[in-house]
Amino acid sequence: MPHFAFHLDHVDATTGARAGRWVTPHGEIETPAFMPVATQAAVKGITVEQLRQAGVQKVLANTYHLALRPGPEVVADLGGLHGFMGWNGPILTDSGGFQVFSLAELRNLDDEGVVFKSHVDGDILELTPERAIEIQELLGADVMMCLDECPPLPSPPERLRAAVDRTTRWARRCRDAQRRDDQALFGIVQGGTDAGLRERSATALLELDFPGYAVGGLSVGEPPVEMYRTLDFTTPFLPKEKPRYLMGVGRPEDLIESVCRGIDLFDCVMPTRNGRNASAFTSDGRVRMRNKQWERDERPLDPAVDCPASRDFSRAYLRHLFVVGEMLGPIVLSWHNIAFYQHTLRELRAAILKDRAAEYRADRLARWNGAD
Amino acid sequence: MPHFAFHLDHVDATTGARAGRWVTPHGEIETPAFMPVATQAAVKGITVEQLRQAGVQKVLANTYHLALRPGPEVVADLGGLHGFMGWNGPILTDSGGFQVFSLAELRNLDDEGVVFKSHVDGDILELTPERAIEIQELLGADVMMCLDECPPLPSPPERLRAAVDRTTRWARRCRDAQRRDDQALFGIVQGGTDAGLRERSATALLELDFPGYAVGGLSVGEPPVEMYRTLDFTTPFLPKEKPRYLMGVGRPEDLIESVCRGIDLFDCVMPTRNGRNASAFTSDGRVRMRNKQWERDERPLDPAVDCPASRDFSRAYLRHLFVVGEMLGPIVLSWHNIAFYQHTLRELRAAILKDRAAEYRADRLARWNGAD
Repeated sequence: MPHFAFHLDHVDATTGARAGRWVTPHGEIETPAFMPVATQAAVKGITVEQLRQAGVQKVLANTYHLALRPGPEVVADLGGLHGFMGWNGPILTDSGGFQVFSLAELRNLDDEGVVFKSHVDGDILELTPERAIEIQELLGADVMMCLDECPPLPSPPERLRAAVDRTTRWARRCRDAQRRDDQALFGIVQGGTDAGLRERSATALLELDFPGYAVGGLSVGEPPVEMYRTLDFTTPFLPKEKPRYLMGVGRPEDLIESVCRGIDLFDCVMPTRNGRNASAFTSDGRVRMRNKQWERDERPLDPAVDCPASRDFSRAYLRHLFVVGEMLGPIVLSWHNIAFYQHTLRELRAAILKDRAAEYRADRLARWNGAD
Repeated sequence: MPHFAFHLDHVDATTGARAGRWVTPHGEIETPAFMPVATQAAVKGITVEQLRQAGVQKVLANTYHLALRPGPEVVADLGGLHGFMGWNGPILTDSGGFQVFSLAELRNLDDEGVVFKSHVDGDILELTPERAIEIQELLGADVMMCLDECPPLPSPPERLRAAVDRTTRWARRCRDAQRRDDQALFGIVQGGTDAGLRERSATALLELDFPGYAVGGLSVGEPPVEMYRTLDFTTPFLPKEKPRYLMGVGRPEDLIESVCRGIDLFDCVMPTRNGRNASAFTSDGRVRMRNKQWERDERPLDPAVDCPASRDFSRAYLRHLFVVGEMLGPIVLSWHNIAFYQHTLRELRAAILKDRAAEYRADRLARWNGAD
């Protein structure tokens, strides 16, 4: 890939956590990195300028939603996602598959692809590996994802194995369908929480030589310890010199635990969804914003976090906004939570560079578990 | 008033429109000026930083809402409204009377005051002139308003006359109740659209020597031409050397028409309410943001307006946000509309300084009437 380069600055001596730099067509990202989710080409309630102020380096947009509205051709006409949403930094799009399986009404699923009913207008549509790439090339993000099959957990072993093999066949078709050379296409390792299936999936995908690999099929109902255990045996199958992306994860503690297991990249709706629901992540643990205890509390949410949302609004004022139903409350809390995620991964990266990732993890988990 | 001074820079030779500067404890305002409405100590969806970027000089907050939640004592404990909402510029609070009459269930109205049922929790509360001042002193805005009686239009002449006389009696009690000398208390001229009643109201209030005067009881159901006609005979009763505030008005064309009749200050929920409802004000007239015609339109809302909301978002993107129901749409459109109001009054002020207010009015009305 001429437009991409992944450099490992350091690997933590104790945990294997990685501090990297990832060059993309729209700028360099320091890893580990967290991508806020701009589902419909907008992070809910947050401007691009506010994302920058929160320290965001890269965002994720959902192909399923954008394929329905406004349609990939419209986005392409308007300069692709970068021009359309006014974000000139790196962007990643998913394949659309996850939302087809979770939001749409399925009509048929076979090796060719998936036929589904749009949740917006009831149209019958088809998503194949080739169409997933065609749409993502029109959207024009820096990173695209292969169409995969992501079964819920728990699922029977034969279902998981069939999903692994279909995911491999679809990955090859995605790779063959790719036309643009300025977008990196990632393979997605499936296999549930089964070590043998994860190895089978990774080995097959490695033969296809993708520029990066995602771990999919986690954070879909299993307990966190199961996810960590799965990462323990999955990341060793992945090439050291390429970025590794854990899809749809998670809480701040999940990010730290996963980085300590060799993951570089994350996305999740949690900071924005929790923010809208009056739940803030802070250095001292969760804050339930509606709580009466904040009624006259002049302290900001988290003075350690370098973002206006974290420093310029008192807890008393934010509580008031939620109690009276002012939309500024969800906005500021979403904004702060995004900044807190960025802050946490920046701190973790600094710890990795000093071989202190394990100490950082222990310190944060002790703080957060005590406070939640 | 030691902390206030109103300077008239120029009066337009043709129309009598005024360009002034108004010194308040929290900074100087150039007039004519428009105050966005921060009903519950927040302009809906807009941060203080975004208000600054939109060119806002002063905001209005609603005493009725803040008296119910979080309560004036809580606001006072948190540094008054300036500290509470993080806005260090000038603030005006209304008396609470208008919302008592429009939102609450009235139980009793007599010369003593008004007894009403809170729309939030059903509590029975009383608002008197003295209590209106006590609450507003706790809120600590730069400008307070007298409690007045504002009848709907049309109302019978005897009802309007009774409201005028009660408003005068209440204004005297408000003046006598005031303790702080760093807040300017404005009298409110009532009298509907009747010239005799307006004169009666203004004459009586002028004897009380308030530092500024508001024209109340307009924009409550009468046609715009009736409002303009009423201003034509009301502003001549008001002292030239004091600021004049037209309450609850209005559309951009109403602002221009009213400035040309001698008004200096405005507030209205229209820019934010219309913004939330996908309606934008621009130099070329109204834009209905959901309209299909914007689907692939890369132009910003209004490049003439110096605000990120007006310049950094394409019409195509804003339309998409409204079509898919993303909250960023209402946010950006509210933000832009506020900036457009500021922009219009800055342009009008520049025209006044050149004795060209009439030309500016004619030009804008021709543009907007053609486009709406």
